[in-house]
Amino acid sequence: MTPTITVFECSPDRGRGLARDMRVRWALEEIGLPYQVRGVAMEALRENAHLARQPFAQIPVYEEAGLALFESGAIVLHVAGLGTGLLPSQPQPRARAIGWMFAALNTVEPPIVEREMAGHRARGRPWFEEHRAMLDAAVDLRLRQLATWLGEADWLEGGFSAGDLLMVSVLHRVGGSPLLAAHPVLQRYLARGQARPAYRRAYAAQRRDFDRSQGH
Amino acid sequence: MTPTITVFECSPDRGRGLARDMRVRWALEEIGLPYQVRGVAMEALRENAHLARQPFAQIPVYEEAGLALFESGAIVLHVAGLGTGLLPSQPQPRARAIGWMFAALNTVEPPIVEREMAGHRARGRPWFEEHRAMLDAAVDLRLRQLATWLGEADWLEGGFSAGDLLMVSVLHRVGGSPLLAAHPVLQRYLARGQARPAYRRAYAAQRRDFDRSQGH
Repeated sequence: MTPTITVFECSPDRGRGLARDMRVRWALEEIGLPYQVRGVAMEALRENAHLARQPFAQIPVYEEAGLALFESGAIVLHVAGLGTGLLPSQPQPRARAIGWMFAALNTVEPPIVEREMAGHRARGRPWFEEHRAMLDAAVDLRLRQLATWLGEADWLEGGFSAGDLLMVSVLHRVGGSPLLAAHPVLQRYLARGQARPAYRRAYAAQRRDFDRSQGH
Repeated sequence: MTPTITVFECSPDRGRGLARDMRVRWALEEIGLPYQVRGVAMEALRENAHLARQPFAQIPVYEEAGLALFESGAIVLHVAGLGTGLLPSQPQPRARAIGWMFAALNTVEPPIVEREMAGHRARGRPWFEEHRAMLDAAVDLRLRQLATWLGEADWLEGGFSAGDLLMVSVLHRVGGSPLLAAHPVLQRYLARGQARPAYRRAYAAQRRDFDRSQGH
């Protein structure tokens, strides 16, 4: 079985690994499952053919025989069940690791995405700086709490898990920002995740797809 | 096994079922598993005893023998595995239902929470109305897409699932707002979820706990 993931034909992040297919590629690389990619143009995201598989006009969609799945968190969870190395096999440690997946997506990512969105929506408004300071504070609170939890540990809990995969993916969104630089513990954690061979293969693949979309 | 869930000792929503323990109570009622409640005071959320179990100073925490779990999405997923009625047993429909859980928490809820937060953070600022209009548009986009998917169906996909449980819980946050009133399909969906006996029992229980905290 070779699954197919639907990705941006030409990623708006210009190949920086910020689009949500990166998480799924990384998970597939961690378990060693080859995959195919189908590119979708930005203007096709709102067409019925795509909305039937992704009602919120996003990417990625994951497809295998008999199953089309959306939401990167759900896809990573599904992929984790197809192999080993992403979730502990014992039920209680497994539940904890899944808890960290939800923490990455429902507690840490939302203020980070909101800060990005405000950059698109409100930049240039006279109140942008004042507003941005509020959003920075909301992100910093979550980063501070996460850094306190992590301390000097390599990973969130025991060995590397899908919880780390999603948390590192979320932190990558603020990777170049002073917000992350204020928390060296998290900078090292991000670097540790991004040094994994599976991450590097996934990053290179999405970059290659972007370069190809530019005719390189 | 009687699990314990940690909730606000005195909920800031004043018993309106908006705190995230409501989702967990509802899930436990759906599978018919009795539970105990432990109240935590607002000022105790940032103490080490709580942070050791909930690093982001939130509620709820779910505890059973040998397991403490945080993130309401992860708890609902765990509870779904303890009984029947919240997730299909076949792997592919189950994966789809879990996809809707993530959609509720990572796609639909974040703009709704951000709109609430802005109400706390920015109300009274001269730019509040302009900003609020941007956030309303972001919420409306998700509601419109969700309403289009749902159409005249009772539930998101097949029978009621944990995906519906979380989506209804998220929509409850805008239940009294013109944002939801613009989508009668979603108003009916919310009412359908809230008419379930398990929802009503869970709602009454959290309300009783709030009333008790007020000395009634």
